[in-house]
Amino acid sequence: MSFAKLDALNRRLEALDHAQLMLAVDEAVMMPPGGGGKRAEAMATLAAMAHELATAPEVADWLAAAEAEDLDAERRAAVVEFRRQHRNLNCLSSDFVARQVEARIRCEQLWRELRPKNDWNGFLPTFEGVVALAREEAERRAEALGLAPYDAMIEQYDPGSRAAAIAPLFDDLKTFLADFVPAALAAQERRRTARPARPLPGPFAIDDQKRLGLALMEAIGFDFNRGRLDISHHPFCNGISDDVRMTTRYESDGFVPALMGILHETGHGLYEQNLPRAWSHWPSGKARGMALHESQSLFQETQLARRREFWEFAMPHVRRHLGPAKFDGWNADDMLAHVQRVAHGLIRVDADEATYPLHIILRFEMERELIAGKLSPADVPARWDEAMGSLLGLSTVGNFKDGPMQDVHWPSGAFGYFPSYALGALIAAQMWEAAGRAIPDLPAQIAAGDFAALNDWRRAGIWSKASMLPADRLIREGTGAPLATAAFKRHLTARYLD
Amino acid sequence: MSFAKLDALNRRLEALDHAQLMLAVDEAVMMPPGGGGKRAEAMATLAAMAHELATAPEVADWLAAAEAEDLDAERRAAVVEFRRQHRNLNCLSSDFVARQVEARIRCEQLWRELRPKNDWNGFLPTFEGVVALAREEAERRAEALGLAPYDAMIEQYDPGSRAAAIAPLFDDLKTFLADFVPAALAAQERRRTARPARPLPGPFAIDDQKRLGLALMEAIGFDFNRGRLDISHHPFCNGISDDVRMTTRYESDGFVPALMGILHETGHGLYEQNLPRAWSHWPSGKARGMALHESQSLFQETQLARRREFWEFAMPHVRRHLGPAKFDGWNADDMLAHVQRVAHGLIRVDADEATYPLHIILRFEMERELIAGKLSPADVPARWDEAMGSLLGLSTVGNFKDGPMQDVHWPSGAFGYFPSYALGALIAAQMWEAAGRAIPDLPAQIAAGDFAALNDWRRAGIWSKASMLPADRLIREGTGAPLATAAFKRHLTARYLD
Repeated sequence: MSFAKLDALNRRLEALDHAQLMLAVDEAVMMPPGGGGKRAEAMATLAAMAHELATAPEVADWLAAAEAEDLDAERRAAVVEFRRQHRNLNCLSSDFVARQVEARIRCEQLWRELRPKNDWNGFLPTFEGVVALAREEAERRAEALGLAPYDAMIEQYDPGSRAAAIAPLFDDLKTFLADFVPAALAAQERRRTARPARPLPGPFAIDDQKRLGLALMEAIGFDFNRGRLDISHHPFCNGISDDVRMTTRYESDGFVPALMGILHETGHGLYEQNLPRAWSHWPSGKARGMALHESQSLFQETQLARRREFWEFAMPHVRRHLGPAKFDGWNADDMLAHVQRVAHGLIRVDADEATYPLHIILRFEMERELIAGKLSPADVPARWDEAMGSLLGLSTVGNFKDGPMQDVHWPSGAFGYFPSYALGALIAAQMWEAAGRAIPDLPAQIAAGDFAALNDWRRAGIWSKASMLPADRLIREGTGAPLATAAFKRHLTARYLD
Repeated sequence: MSFAKLDALNRRLEALDHAQLMLAVDEAVMMPPGGGGKRAEAMATLAAMAHELATAPEVADWLAAAEAEDLDAERRAAVVEFRRQHRNLNCLSSDFVARQVEARIRCEQLWRELRPKNDWNGFLPTFEGVVALAREEAERRAEALGLAPYDAMIEQYDPGSRAAAIAPLFDDLKTFLADFVPAALAAQERRRTARPARPLPGPFAIDDQKRLGLALMEAIGFDFNRGRLDISHHPFCNGISDDVRMTTRYESDGFVPALMGILHETGHGLYEQNLPRAWSHWPSGKARGMALHESQSLFQETQLARRREFWEFAMPHVRRHLGPAKFDGWNADDMLAHVQRVAHGLIRVDADEATYPLHIILRFEMERELIAGKLSPADVPARWDEAMGSLLGLSTVGNFKDGPMQDVHWPSGAFGYFPSYALGALIAAQMWEAAGRAIPDLPAQIAAGDFAALNDWRRAGIWSKASMLPADRLIREGTGAPLATAAFKRHLTARYLD
């Protein structure tokens, strides 16, 4: 039976994938710098081996035969994703994949070294190599998939998502935010004048912050038998369903950024931990693209954890772990002033939920130009500065590390990934409205620290479905509406203006 | 050219090896328990893939052709080791390797869970499976290699080493130690009566202990750009030359066991870090077997770091990191009372250097019987207790966790490994005598914390030669004598009786 052959093949691919994921985690969390060369070689070789296995000539025959086999619904859905995986892998040669993986990892390693030094000129030649490979990749994929080059890149992160559908959503957001952000800043100013924010009673010991984060993760439903929390320069959530590796980074003067980072990654972690484990080696058993993944983290972080009811639940934990005396007399509203704030800033990962989409729109527009060859890597800083000025009124002249060198995505060749973040925010807002309809007393449950019904609802609607359905159907069925900006705009308006 | 094909093949094997090593490190240091199932699957699959690659039919042709090619000395030596690797890999099928790796990892995971519970009966059925696979492995290897079954297992850890050569060395040690240990205990008693040992001024904070360990590692020559120190239940040194992962475990009441563990693993780490990096993907570029590896760790730990001169160098570090006030008035002799002591104990890894070989002899004799089918897994506890009684005068009845469940080796199927530890002690003693002849003012250099000449000598004699020569030649040329017990006996006598 051909399905059984595809199944066995995908168990092997799962093992190679397991190794690559865990080696990537290790590189970010543990690896000493001198290990980088051999790590890049190993990753490139493993990627090439996986690619060779998955694109071996006989696989096409198995696929064609499996598509004609009489299979149950689960297996039929699996074959659809086997086919999609196969089509996408066959766009590139194994040799190209190996070259690209090694170039990406080395560029990422160089970026880690040069970003703190603000050394754009030292970084540029290597970055040009990565962009050249990305353009070549986009061309090859575009030809094989019958898509525009940038769409062919987006397809790797968000199957079915297209720039022509994203652009109007982003244009709408740009127009909305041009008025909304100044209005939100003014409203914030009025609120602060009426009731000044209590300054956070720092410093906060890192160990205490970690214990607080672990306590909230556990309360929210993260399974520590199948995951853990570490520290890395760039927070992430990676790994597999049975072994989720999350990271954050701490600063001792304020605990909010690290904690919100933990809650954000916990959203990713819950998605991974609640995927159907029996299909973990099938593409149809994996998370349905990065926009939906990000919707789960943003649901957790912005929709849920920046809400008053969440802090009614969380304040006793804050007191217990960071010191009861420090938070004497604090209530949930005092915390809201720290977790609901709008500000113009240079750094995407530090941005608030209102200005965040502007950071993404900037990158989306530049990526399209980079992949299309309309923007050269050398001109990136000037273009960045211009966009920062027009979108956020800020300048990054000479400040490369807080400008185009701030993110790991481009150094690691992940062009086409950024739109997911803003799309995820739109989906999360729609999901929140749907959750409220499905669970009428949701606010009270949250205030009581009871996330069981909410998690059951998320599991049924999104997590357990993995990649059995296309993303647009999952979004429509999981939120009751196709992807749009309306819920997100309602959310921002309710939280920051009303 | 066939050599080039072997070279390319071994780059692929290096990548798979890299993944397996780092996944093993991650499992011991980081992995949450629930990740164990998928980890075992991934490891088994990677092992099978490596095995398939290395035993593909064309590899035999490449090998035969490469042996006929006109190659330089380095490549000729590489081909010798390619052949040895190929012969050993072809003893087993890829399917057998996958089954065995998974069984070993699962048994090891079970052992981690059941050892603290002293649950021998829960452990036995899984252990029986591992022993059955090991016997099957030994049979298959014996047939293919023309060796006795247990020798064929030893061959996997110490190429060229044979039980018939080990047994007389061990018998000689057994005879020697039967008189020596009581004499050493009596001498120790006399010394302590004359000058009681100063009790260690604990407790010592774990962070302080770690800083002390790192400082000594660095002074000794460990390169932290290419390695790191972590914590695991069972201390180890693993990884690759460019990325050495060492672990220890700390206890707050005494700093000596953790520190000596660190120094021990540093010996392994220096060997790895100083292997010829250009050949890292050739078997001839790897360390020459586990006895030589252990000789490097024991050279560091027992020969060097349990010596007065070492503590003349180390005491200022101890004071700086553990608290100057605590060690007010302490000198190197005060520390010697804590690092040179003989005692009967149940635990191999905690044993002193005089009783340590007895722990190995016990395991060597039992392993031979287990592999030969003369001892059944169910009878291991009784046989263990009997041997403990006759060798060390101790009983382990009902105390499985400090008896046959104390080591990871058997649960993980590593039969044939144990002899290396005692052989390493013999080699280390010979190397120390040779180092003293080569560097006349070695004691003064050590007291001054200057390890450069010693490390240069070790690099030239052992480290840089990797597996270019057979172990017996390396030992003879590196220590000036064939492997024997004389130097070790002289060493023990000088340190503990004189």
